[in-house]
Amino acid sequence: MTNRADGRALDELRPVTIERGWSAQAEGSALISFGNTKVLCTASFTPGVPRWLTGKGTGWVTAEYAMLPRATNERSQREAVKGKVGGRTHEISRLIGRSLRAAIDMKALGENTIVLDCDVLQADGGTRTAAITGAFVALADSIEWARGQKHITRKAEVLKHSVSAVSVGIIDGVPMLDLPYEEDVRADTDMNVVMTGNGKFVEVQGTAEQEPFDGAELNELLALAIKGNADLARIQAGVLSQ
Amino acid sequence: MTNRADGRALDELRPVTIERGWSAQAEGSALISFGNTKVLCTASFTPGVPRWLTGKGTGWVTAEYAMLPRATNERSQREAVKGKVGGRTHEISRLIGRSLRAAIDMKALGENTIVLDCDVLQADGGTRTAAITGAFVALADSIEWARGQKHITRKAEVLKHSVSAVSVGIIDGVPMLDLPYEEDVRADTDMNVVMTGNGKFVEVQGTAEQEPFDGAELNELLALAIKGNADLARIQAGVLSQ
Amino acid sequence: MTNRADGRALDELRPVTIERGWSAQAEGSALISFGNTKVLCTASFTPGVPRWLTGKGTGWVTAEYAMLPRATNERSQREAVKGKVGGRTHEISRLIGRSLRAAIDMKALGENTIVLDCDVLQADGGTRTAAITGAFVALADSIEWARGQKHITRKAEVLKHSVSAVSVGIIDGVPMLDLPYEEDVRADTDMNVVMTGNGKFVEVQGTAEQEPFDGAELNELLALAIKGNADLARIQAGVLSQ
Amino acid sequence: MTNRADGRALDELRPVTIERGWSAQAEGSALISFGNTKVLCTASFTPGVPRWLTGKGTGWVTAEYAMLPRATNERSQREAVKGKVGGRTHEISRLIGRSLRAAIDMKALGENTIVLDCDVLQADGGTRTAAITGAFVALADSIEWARGQKHITRKAEVLKHSVSAVSVGIIDGVPMLDLPYEEDVRADTDMNVVMTGNGKFVEVQGTAEQEPFDGAELNELLALAIKGNADLARIQAGVLSQ
Amino acid sequence: MTNRADGRALDELRPVTIERGWSAQAEGSALISFGNTKVLCTASFTPGVPRWLTGKGTGWVTAEYAMLPRATNERSQREAVKGKVGGRTHEISRLIGRSLRAAIDMKALGENTIVLDCDVLQADGGTRTAAITGAFVALADSIEWARGQKHITRKAEVLKHSVSAVSVGIIDGVPMLDLPYEEDVRADTDMNVVMTGNGKFVEVQGTAEQEPFDGAELNELLALAIKGNADLARIQAGVLSQ
Amino acid sequence: MTNRADGRALDELRPVTIERGWSAQAEGSALISFGNTKVLCTASFTPGVPRWLTGKGTGWVTAEYAMLPRATNERSQREAVKGKVGGRTHEISRLIGRSLRAAIDMKALGENTIVLDCDVLQADGGTRTAAITGAFVALADSIEWARGQKHITRKAEVLKHSVSAVSVGIIDGVPMLDLPYEEDVRADTDMNVVMTGNGKFVEVQGTAEQEPFDGAELNELLALAIKGNADLARIQAGVLSQ
Repeated sequence: MTNRADGRALDELRPVTIERGWSAQAEGSALISFGNTKVLCTASFTPGVPRWLTGKGTGWVTAEYAMLPRATNERSQREAVKGKVGGRTHEISRLIGRSLRAAIDMKALGENTIVLDCDVLQADGGTRTAAITGAFVALADSIEWARGQKHITRKAEVLKHSVSAVSVGIIDGVPMLDLPYEEDVRADTDMNVVMTGNGKFVEVQGTAEQEPFDGAELNELLALAIKGNADLARIQAGVLSQ
Repeated sequence: MTNRADGRALDELRPVTIERGWSAQAEGSALISFGNTKVLCTASFTPGVPRWLTGKGTGWVTAEYAMLPRATNERSQREAVKGKVGGRTHEISRLIGRSLRAAIDMKALGENTIVLDCDVLQADGGTRTAAITGAFVALADSIEWARGQKHITRKAEVLKHSVSAVSVGIIDGVPMLDLPYEEDVRADTDMNVVMTGNGKFVEVQGTAEQEPFDGAELNELLALAIKGNADLARIQAGVLSQ
Repeated sequence: MTNRADGRALDELRPVTIERGWSAQAEGSALISFGNTKVLCTASFTPGVPRWLTGKGTGWVTAEYAMLPRATNERSQREAVKGKVGGRTHEISRLIGRSLRAAIDMKALGENTIVLDCDVLQADGGTRTAAITGAFVALADSIEWARGQKHITRKAEVLKHSVSAVSVGIIDGVPMLDLPYEEDVRADTDMNVVMTGNGKFVEVQGTAEQEPFDGAELNELLALAIKGNADLARIQAGVLSQ
Repeated sequence: MTNRADGRALDELRPVTIERGWSAQAEGSALISFGNTKVLCTASFTPGVPRWLTGKGTGWVTAEYAMLPRATNERSQREAVKGKVGGRTHEISRLIGRSLRAAIDMKALGENTIVLDCDVLQADGGTRTAAITGAFVALADSIEWARGQKHITRKAEVLKHSVSAVSVGIIDGVPMLDLPYEEDVRADTDMNVVMTGNGKFVEVQGTAEQEPFDGAELNELLALAIKGNADLARIQAGVLSQ
Repeated sequence: MTNRADGRALDELRPVTIERGWSAQAEGSALISFGNTKVLCTASFTPGVPRWLTGKGTGWVTAEYAMLPRATNERSQREAVKGKVGGRTHEISRLIGRSLRAAIDMKALGENTIVLDCDVLQADGGTRTAAITGAFVALADSIEWARGQKHITRKAEVLKHSVSAVSVGIIDGVPMLDLPYEEDVRADTDMNVVMTGNGKFVEVQGTAEQEPFDGAELNELLALAIKGNADLARIQAGVLSQ
Repeated sequence: MTNRADGRALDELRPVTIERGWSAQAEGSALISFGNTKVLCTASFTPGVPRWLTGKGTGWVTAEYAMLPRATNERSQREAVKGKVGGRTHEISRLIGRSLRAAIDMKALGENTIVLDCDVLQADGGTRTAAITGAFVALADSIEWARGQKHITRKAEVLKHSVSAVSVGIIDGVPMLDLPYEEDVRADTDMNVVMTGNGKFVEVQGTAEQEPFDGAELNELLALAIKGNADLARIQAGVLSQ
């Protein structure tokens, strides 16, 4: 028994759904939900690489994250209208890009570019972790598509392993997995952990929002994240095997 | 019998679906489809008006339109990344705002603000007309919500009539209703017509893309638009009566 | 007899003057007045086309519209100082570009570029229609200049027909031609109509500012616009024949 | 006898014309020509001052300079389209503002704001000096207007003296007055000198474009500038006395 | 014995110097060096808080990070010239702000604002960790200054503990402390760890640049970071006690 | 005896120090102080020139000036955060660029580019003159470096002469050399004079901040500037001969 508002166990994910191939336009796509958080992830595959990479025999993967203005409870101004991309948006876009690049063997990808767009349609905490988890599915499908189109011809696997992400946090001294918005704002410590399907770390970002944390707390949070990412890896594998 | 790729009659709309209340966050929302075109419309209601309207006893309604980067067949750069809103986006946002303001009795709305966000998730022609048609549903629901919350207290109807929009065009000399992308690019003349539910014009925007058109052609196009908007008004009424 | 403040008939233009060749620098230019509205139109001809058109054998015509900060009764902030071009400016620039491109046989123009700049020096309603009408004269002269310089060598006529534009509107239920500012702000419906010299429509943009309009009103407005554009076409022809 | 292309004496201005009250909208205005250089100067008078000056009993005068894109022989991109005001534009705007503020007794002006807009319609060298000289006439008229409107009520003269400006330069070792574009690009040294009507210096900006200059050359240039500014002061006085 | 290019032990910091009070202008300042990395940190103290915090009885601390264009081996373009702050800059500014806020009791600070500016004069790896470490010294001095000026009057300690930061990484499988640029670019995993003077974590940011890392490696890196931050806390305390 | 706050003679410079080679990264650098004004000047040498100069056999030298946000007594907002470079910054950057280009034989430099960055670390009046004086030292060293690297191979001297700059002004009717901030704000007239080491003028910029000045005052100011620049040229020569 826990005292979480939605009745979940401390180490339990919110319901996760992944609608693979949601977009009729993109080479790969997934509409992913972590509870009420919904993110549309698309992968745009283009033969060729930016000029500064040409001739090096390796590919390029980058990502952009954004939120619709009314994804949240109060409407926020569009960044296009403000005329600049905000710090938080930049930071998350960079995190998604790094995380997904960690899944890729750039030599095997060859001189091709994949752009991952993660647009939050509805936000209820964990948008960046849902984005990474969904983007992996879109990425995988775009690579499959490119194999079919002969844009990728090397035999080596392009995907070295799957990648997923989950948030963990400490609320009133209790570590928990996958925080929705109402838990997130109350957390003392908030951590996002990106992992591979075989249990290694790609990115660990922990922040003491209220009180600094000690090594024991850090270890408890990491254990929860390992459990959550293992669950997500299974869900991703299930979706991709259909 | 027609020679339209999707087998439609010349005066027939593509399948229209309106998912009312799609967003758990906004005061009103609708996910509308015109065939493969999908637009998420939200209405954000806020008590109060911008400073320059304060004390005048009237409300304010405005709109913003945008497209996800991979809504289209080729990825386009985000306007937030470019640092400015493009001309086409501005123009459509202004059109949507004018069109929906035409549905409102600003005195009856009182000193309240409604922002309509129309985000194109997938684009296949007619994104601005789908946006206007869906935004009306979101608008209506946000007004209903505000009545319930006592933000609107005047007895007068806030909505004077419904508003919808449809595109018409001439292709190889043949006028047609509701053009998908592949027809749109081939059209000699392209017209967007915004109308009220009682058959009056709110906005008529006709453009000769290839060849100038004469008065007879203009009349044929208007007749198709009247028919299409009457169909849309029925669909809107059906959705709102549920 | 009418009740227009300036004593004009309902279907009468304000005094129109076109000072052809006003600029000593541009390949074509015209300072046009519609009453107190004064717009300086220049056509800048450059051999060659943007990279994305190279080798296709066709030309490119584009337009930019702007207003001096004190063209209007109250000074407005410069868009260069604000750091972005406003929605209205974008929309009018695009309209002028489309309208003038409709006058051109792009194959006959060959791989050449013409940029039309329309700068409003003084504004009293109808700035976009004056701009289109004046820009046609500047455009025609720049083509003549380019023939003389052998930048255009194909025999075919580059100009397919003349293009002009005029505003019409309904004020207190009465349709009228060519609205100055004081009429424009009172109009229920406002329409800008771009036509060719041989009486076809290039662009029809009608907006219900206060009340939606019906088909009968639309027809009356179009009739006025046809009359006004015929007058303008005669004035253009007169100026160009000197 | 000189070898100037236009046959002028070395200490002779180009023909100067000042069309006072050119604008029907502004509180003061002048269309000034220095030969083929034409600048439209308007003065916008507004009661009140920016917040940071409120209650200090003094006025505020500022200026903005800009060039139409086709004022010059080759079209330049609009700064509004580039999204920023260039260094040269900024620098000249600041120079004009400082120069005209030097003409004003800010206490006598009272808490009122005057914005001077100088828009170059055609450019042939000396645009900043023509702008300053014309802006003074617009400024004087706006002050006269404000006296009439009782926005200025103190008895003291607001204008302490007139202000004008002229360029001087050294070409092939020969100092000359008021350089048109073709002389300007060849000049070794280029100097702009802003002076009061009673022969004092407001601003001296001399730049060695090719070769550094010595004290003797500096003195010759200053003598020419004193002569030219005396001529301009007489022309301004003549125009303002009509 | 190690194989580090500069001969350091694996758990040894580069030489650290902190020039306290470097700036004659700021309320607190420090020029800090981590080897060849030099960062000028200033703390600007202003009574009062932004409007949205007024009346809540708490203070506000924020930070901005930037690099001089030639701090690095190749000159990079100024962000002011590009017209926007890059993603990396944003991300680091946000990290510094969060880290230093963790040191502060906002109630004890009262309604006062402190802005921390960290400008990298020379960069050789670890610029963000040097910035945090130096900013703490500037912050402490600005609080001392404010006490002296009676801007801070509550008795409670404003600083809850010191804060410092250090980088750790794995190169060729070997975990090391405080990486200069040449080590940083070769690292498989790179981690920045912000800690309090009493040994708790404020922020942990680990990234697998090449290969994902496992829990054992993570623990080794954390142990090095704990050692490095303890050394930095001692150095800070020494400087502040003078 | 004078009444200057720091006890200097009217024609005496503040203490000048030039720390040559301050930066370990740039091809040339100098940290210069004029009293409390400290400017870090770096010269970045790159083989090659911008595209529009390629093949003309001449080099390119440009400059950028900026101030750290807390260089001044009150913190100013970063221009990168504002998203644009201010007018004053542009103007000074352009002045520095012109001044240093006057020192260079562009043919002898060959097709190479030098960018001078002048970043004000602490400001107390005279930042632009210190920047020019320090930038010359950085420039000289970068040319020396390029000779050593064989990027410059022509025999001709690249530096035609040294360049320095100093401010002069009139305070309470008394002309003085090298004004710190507290004198600068009180000056009636303020002049910046850039000169060559052999006593010629490169740039003279005099502005009447309060009262216009006459020819006699101008001559006194120029005499002081000649004296001050001669002193600076000696200091530069001393530093460069070490």
